[in-house]
Order: sequence, then C-alpha cells, then structure tokens
Amino acid sequence: MAFDLFLLAGMVFDDNAAAADRGRVVSVSMFVAVLCLCVVVGHMLEENRWTNESITAIVIGCIVGTIILVASKGKNSHIVRFDQELFFMYLVPPIIFNAGFQVKKKQFFHNFLTILLFGVVGIFISFAIISAGSWKLFPKIGFTGLSIQEYLALGAIFSTTDTVCTLQVLHQDETPRLYSLVFGEGVVNDATSIVLFNAIQKLDVSKLEGWAVLHVFGDFLYLFSTSTILGIAIGLLTSYALRALYFGRHSTDREIALMVLMAYLSYMMAELSQLSGILTVFFCGIVMSHYAWHNVTENSRITTRHIFATMSFIAETFIFLYVGMDALDIEKWKAMKTRGAVSVALAFSQFAHSGVTWDPVYATMITSTIVVVLFSTLVFGILTKPLINVVLPHHVHRGSDQQPKADDITLSLIPPEDSAESGLLQARRSLSRLLARPVHTIHAYWRKFDDKYMRPVFGGAT
Amino acid sequence: MAFDLFLLAGMVFDDNAAAADRGRVVSVSMFVAVLCLCVVVGHMLEENRWTNESITAIVIGCIVGTIILVASKGKNSHIVRFDQELFFMYLVPPIIFNAGFQVKKKQFFHNFLTILLFGVVGIFISFAIISAGSWKLFPKIGFTGLSIQEYLALGAIFSTTDTVCTLQVLHQDETPRLYSLVFGEGVVNDATSIVLFNAIQKLDVSKLEGWAVLHVFGDFLYLFSTSTILGIAIGLLTSYALRALYFGRHSTDREIALMVLMAYLSYMMAELSQLSGILTVFFCGIVMSHYAWHNVTENSRITTRHIFATMSFIAETFIFLYVGMDALDIEKWKAMKTRGAVSVALAFSQFAHSGVTWDPVYATMITSTIVVVLFSTLVFGILTKPLINVVLPHHVHRGSDQQPKADDITLSLIPPEDSAESGLLQARRSLSRLLARPVHTIHAYWRKFDDKYMRPVFGGAT
Repeated sequence: MAFDLFLLAGMVFDDNAAAADRGRVVSVSMFVAVLCLCVVVGHMLEENRWTNESITAIVIGCIVGTIILVASKGKNSHIVRFDQELFFMYLVPPIIFNAGFQVKKKQFFHNFLTILLFGVVGIFISFAIISAGSWKLFPKIGFTGLSIQEYLALGAIFSTTDTVCTLQVLHQDETPRLYSLVFGEGVVNDATSIVLFNAIQKLDVSKLEGWAVLHVFGDFLYLFSTSTILGIAIGLLTSYALRALYFGRHSTDREIALMVLMAYLSYMMAELSQLSGILTVFFCGIVMSHYAWHNVTENSRITTRHIFATMSFIAETFIFLYVGMDALDIEKWKAMKTRGAVSVALAFSQFAHSGVTWDPVYATMITSTIVVVLFSTLVFGILTKPLINVVLPHHVHRGSDQQPKADDITLSLIPPEDSAESGLLQARRSLSRLLARPVHTIHAYWRKFDDKYMRPVFGGAT
Repeated sequence: MAFDLFLLAGMVFDDNAAAADRGRVVSVSMFVAVLCLCVVVGHMLEENRWTNESITAIVIGCIVGTIILVASKGKNSHIVRFDQELFFMYLVPPIIFNAGFQVKKKQFFHNFLTILLFGVVGIFISFAIISAGSWKLFPKIGFTGLSIQEYLALGAIFSTTDTVCTLQVLHQDETPRLYSLVFGEGVVNDATSIVLFNAIQKLDVSKLEGWAVLHVFGDFLYLFSTSTILGIAIGLLTSYALRALYFGRHSTDREIALMVLMAYLSYMMAELSQLSGILTVFFCGIVMSHYAWHNVTENSRITTRHIFATMSFIAETFIFLYVGMDALDIEKWKAMKTRGAVSVALAFSQFAHSGVTWDPVYATMITSTIVVVLFSTLVFGILTKPLINVVLPHHVHRGSDQQPKADDITLSLIPPEDSAESGLLQARRSLSRLLARPVHTIHAYWRKFDDKYMRPVFGGAT
C-alpha cells in the first residue's frame, strides 16, 4: 500500500508511468502465483516417469499463456515481459553456481579430459557439419539470402548445449557419469561458443588462412584459463575471509550473505572482464564447496546447501515457465528478445535488429531456433528418463542424500557385475582404465598439495 | 560473457541501449562489492558499542559516494540509481516478513493493546501537533506557500515510524518489551499513515465536519482487519499445503521455495488490493512461523530461519548503504525519487512532480525530510545503545539463540527485583497487571482453540 501511494502520486502527474508500475505489480504477483502452482504440480507429478520439473513448467506456462491469450483477445500471451538482462544477470548465475557447488568433484575431475574433448573438439565437429550442411541444403529448399558468415553463425548457434536443460533432464545420483559428461560439456561449451562466435564475427571470409583455426584455439585456451582462474581466486578469497575473520562468532547471517554475494560477484566480474561468466561461477562454486563451506557454522552449512539449491530451483522453474508462455507469443516469434537457452541468445545476437521491422529470412531463423529449443526440451526431455531405464536397467536409483564412493565411477555407464560383457565393452573398459590412470596420478598429487598448502590456509573438510 | 554477446549485438544496432546495459553490469557489480565490504566491516565493528550495522552501512555509503563524486567530477554520487519499485517491491517485503517470522509471538500479543494504542492514538496526536505546529511556525520563519492540506500531509509524513530503522537500532533479545512496542507500533503505523494520508487527500477543507474523524477511524479499522486477515489466510493456506502434501518426502527445495514464494505473494496481493502490504506480510510471517515452519523437514526449518534472516539482512544493508550514497547526491536533493523510510515515500508522494523543474518550496520540503531521516537514523541510532545501557543497566544481554520464558515479559522495562521502587512505578505496574489480565485470559482461550481446531489442520509445534 505504501507502494500504492507512489502510484497514486504518479497517477496525478503521469498517467502512463503509474499504469506501467501498477501493471508490473499485477504481473509479478501473477507470475509468483503461477510459480507456486508449478511447485505444487511438480511435487504431485514427481513419481510420474514421463515428466520432469521442466516439462511440467513448460506445459503450465503454455496453459497460462493460452488463458491470457484468450483473455486479452489475442493481444499477448505473457504475464510479464522480461529482457535478456533478467535472464543473464539474475537467473543463470544461481543455476550454474549451484551446479558447481553440488557437483561431485571427484567424478567431475576424473572425467575432465573427456569433458574437454566433448566440449571443444565436439563442438568444432558439430559446428562444421551444421554450417556445411545448411550451406548445402538451404538453397535446395528455396531458402536463400544468407551470407557465408551467417551460415557459420548458424553452426555455432546449434552446436551449443544448454546447461540449464541438462540439469533438469539428468540427475547426478541416477547417472553420475553421464551427468558429469553432459553437464560438464555444457559448461565448457559456454566458453567455446563465445570464442567461436567472436571468431566468426571478426572473420574475413575473403582471406581465410589455415592458421585461423589455431588462432581460435588459442583464444579458447586464454578465455578458458582466465575464467577458471578468476572463479578459483574469488572462491579462495571468500574461503580465506570466512576462515580468518570467523564470522559465525557473531552472526550466521553474515557468513551466508558473504557467500551468496561473493558467488554473484564472481559471475558479474567475469562478465565485466568479457570472460565466460558461466565457467567462472561454476569454478567459484566448486572452490567454495571444497573450502569455504567447511569454514562456516553447522547451521550455515545446512542453510547454504539448501539456499543455493532453492535459488537454482526457482530460477529453473521460472525459465521453463517463461519458455512455455513464450511459445504462444506470436508477436515474439517475429521480434523475440529472450529465450532460455544460450542458443537462442546467440541466435538473437546474430539475427536481431533493434527495430520492429524484420527481414523475413532473419525472422524465419529465429523462429526455427525457438522450434528447435522447444522440440528438443520437450521431446528429448520426455524421452530421456525412459531411455535411460531401457539402456541402463541397473542404474543407481536417485537417493536422498547418498554420496557416491570413488568406485562408483564405473557403476553408471558400464555396470561391473555384468560378467557376460561383450568384447566391445571389454575393450571400452580397458581404454577407459588406461585413460583413468594419469587422472588418478594427478589426483594423488593434488591431494598431497591440498593437504600441505591449501587446507591450512583456506580451510576445508577435516 | 554470454550476456556480452547481447551487448555486442545491441551495440551494432543501438549504441545507447547497449551502453545502458553495460553500465548496469558495472554498477550492479560495484554495488555487490560494496555490500560485501559492509558485511566484513560490520562484522569487525560488532563489539563497538557506538555503532550498529545501519550506521556502518550509511558511513560506507557516504565514503563510496564521495569517491564516486570526486571520480565523476561532481556529476553524481551514485553507483546505481534505484527507483521506488525496487524499494517497495523487493527490499521491504523480506525485512518485514522476517520480523514477523522471528518475532516473539507471546511477547508481541501480550503488548498488543499497547501497540495499537501507540500505533493509532499516538500517531493522531503526533499528527495533530506537527500539523498545527508547522502551520503556526512556518509563516513566522518566512516559509510560506503551503496550503492547509499540505500542512496536514506534513504532519502525516513526520509521524510515521520507520520499521526498518527500528529493527536495526533495537534488539529483540536485549530489550524484548521495548522492541515489541516500538517495532509493533511501526507495523501498525503503516496502515494508519496510509489511511490518514488518503483521508487528507480526499479532504474537503471548506466543509469540515466532526464525524470526519470517525470516518477515518472506520477506514483504519477496515484496512487493519482486511490486511491482517489476508496475511493470516495466506499463511494458513501455505501451512495446510505443506502439511497435506508433505513436500519434504521428495525435495526440501520445494518446501523452501513454496514458503518464500507464498510469503512474497502475500505482500504483493495486499498491494494489489490496496491494503497495507507491511501488515499483511508481517502477519503472514507470524502464522508461518507458528504453523508452516513445523510442517517441514528439519533441514528446511534451519534453512528457512536463516534464509529469511539473511535476505532481510542484505536488504537492510542495501537500504542504508543507499541512504548513505544518496545523502551526497545534490541532484537528488532536488529531484529525489527513493529513500529508505516510509516518511520519505509519503513526502515524495505529496510534493513530487514528474518533471525536472521544481517548485522551491516543495524542494525545500523534500530536502528537509531527508535531513530529518538522516539525522534521526544517525544521531538517535548512535545514542540508542548507550542510552539503553544507562537507563536499563540490568537488561538481558543479547543471547545467541536464547528463547525467553513467559515470565520474561516484565523483565525488560520494569525489573522485578527493583524492591525500592517509587510510588509511580508501583502504580504503573498495577496498571500494567490490570491491563495484562484480560490479555492472559484471551491467551488461555486462544491456546485451547489452537490445540483443538487449528493445530490438527494446519500443523504446529508438538
């Protein structure tokens, strides 16, 4: 009501501004109410094997969108229009930080080489295939008007993996290795796609040289390492501050506030420095869960673990709800501004113009990006759970707080008790053991270094 | 960096929009960094008896403001400009909800009649004195040009108590009764001041009738009861949902998310219905801590208690930091838009025009409101702690998680071991006991009702 006084005051002098403010209160309230609905429905459908949280949210978003579309007589399907600022500044950081904070570190780093392989080499292959394919195919179906650079951009757009979707479809406890690989690849993807995209924009097609590819690789290495180092540095700084000042002595709120604020700061600083915010905040989360989390009081430990998970949960539901509503927005199909996935962000960046008038070719590109995102989230999302059950009938069921042992690593994709395994499987396992050997050695060295130099300064599990 | 792609895309087509977005990233990062600084400095000054968190934040805000003022060569003292939307939609709700969630309910309701007396009768007295006083005094110091209605508005503005400041200056564990009275009065104030302010705006000065006062009282009763009922209803609904659906079975995150979202929804719905959001969210907090909190898992209980406290802590620090920066903003002294206190909100609502050109009389009014708010926060804030120590040397020291017993009620303002008490004190105590008797009876009936009808449906402490 105090707020309404402002609105009243505003109304006297400026009708439009007040109406906009009032509209904002209405729309935020409705959005929060629908979010609550998603939480309740998601809970009730928990046991259903064909759905997951993101699909529930998308479907509810579609239903609410339809209602609004009918109520507003076809004018819009949105409760509220958000921009990319909201998405990239406020929704993505908690999701990725929480992923880093809760990720099974041993599992993740054991698969690190494979993840890099998928995330860097994989994306280049996929990029080449999609660019070349669309360049060959598009003119044949009568879709012309794109330049070489635009075909390359198209390849970059469709080779990015969406980390947010991965987190929803796969579960760390059910399929730990698959989760590590796919999610880890998604995180590395963020850096790769940015480098690739920037490289394309700078590309001079007329004088393409062989070592341009090397240059792109160099850029990737630079971006990857600086982003990682920034995340680790901020994580270590927070751990040190929490240990040295011992905040819990006076107030647990300060500990929690400091962890939340520093995590957010790491993302923002990376964005400021033109680095990959996703990589930075992910590594910041890993370092904080390894050191900082052990320097706070017991209550703060429980709270931070759940605070990050809940923030991430709300942000995810928010995004998918919005995607559902967006799907019905015909206006936005032509002039879209935000969509959950990194793909669409890139699509927008490449094809969007600031005005309302649209080149029909570009509009088609953006529309098809939305179709691909919706299709892959819904269809692949629905199919993933049953598919995993068919392919891996013995996979570990999602436990409540179950921590995997180091030996669990081989459990997921290749069940060890499968004695009648084929020759192919045997060969695959030998290969994976061979690959695992150097990783094990590195891990042993790291443990020694951690115990001797890191833990005494930054704290950690005792 | 993904965000930067948008910025790059934007830059190609629209230089101003991209620069504004970029500026937002810079300013939000800086603000978060300064917030971290406040947390650390606040922790280190914790043992200092002359400061508190809000004063620390204001001082840091002033220092940062000065630095920015010098760096920008006198252009502005702000990292970022926020509007009233941010303040009333995002910062106030967590602070007041947390106050309701953590308030000692027995203590609060035992003092309920006194609180209403202060909150309603007190504000009318204060309103009358300030309005009449300024109407008499202002022309004498050569400050003319205000209408009768504006003098009345001035009275309403300066009689509102700021609940946010109260929470910072007093502590529930140190002076439980004083805290209940002053903070409770602040919450009731919100409803009263809105009613009063609306009444003034509708007032037809030419035909003032005696029963206009009665009408205002009627309005207050309506607003107070509807706001309270809305808050209680949403709190009960949440408690019932949490109990009936047993969310903790699948995920603690959903429990926490539902509590946070429903709490926020209660505030927004009150604002939508033109009720007092502060009263609603306060009572929603009380009901949730009495019922809903007991229906969730142990981990969720710890988390919610700290999540609300931390959100409130960050919001408070944010506000005071901003107040500190604002104090240096010369531009804003003429064209201010946001300031922590409800007083300033009312001041703005009454005197602000939408344009940049300003009536010098109105500008003076807003400037003096800012001076009063800053002065009272800093000077009274600094003096409160030592003053309480002088007046009440035996007061209970702030315990960590100490819960007061029912007998603690008389402990704070009137120490029971004071055997050599004066006649006045004795008379006062008899009066307070007399007043307490009906309250005790009501409390006993409430307990019976609660045990028999409420707890079986909505859950609660067992």
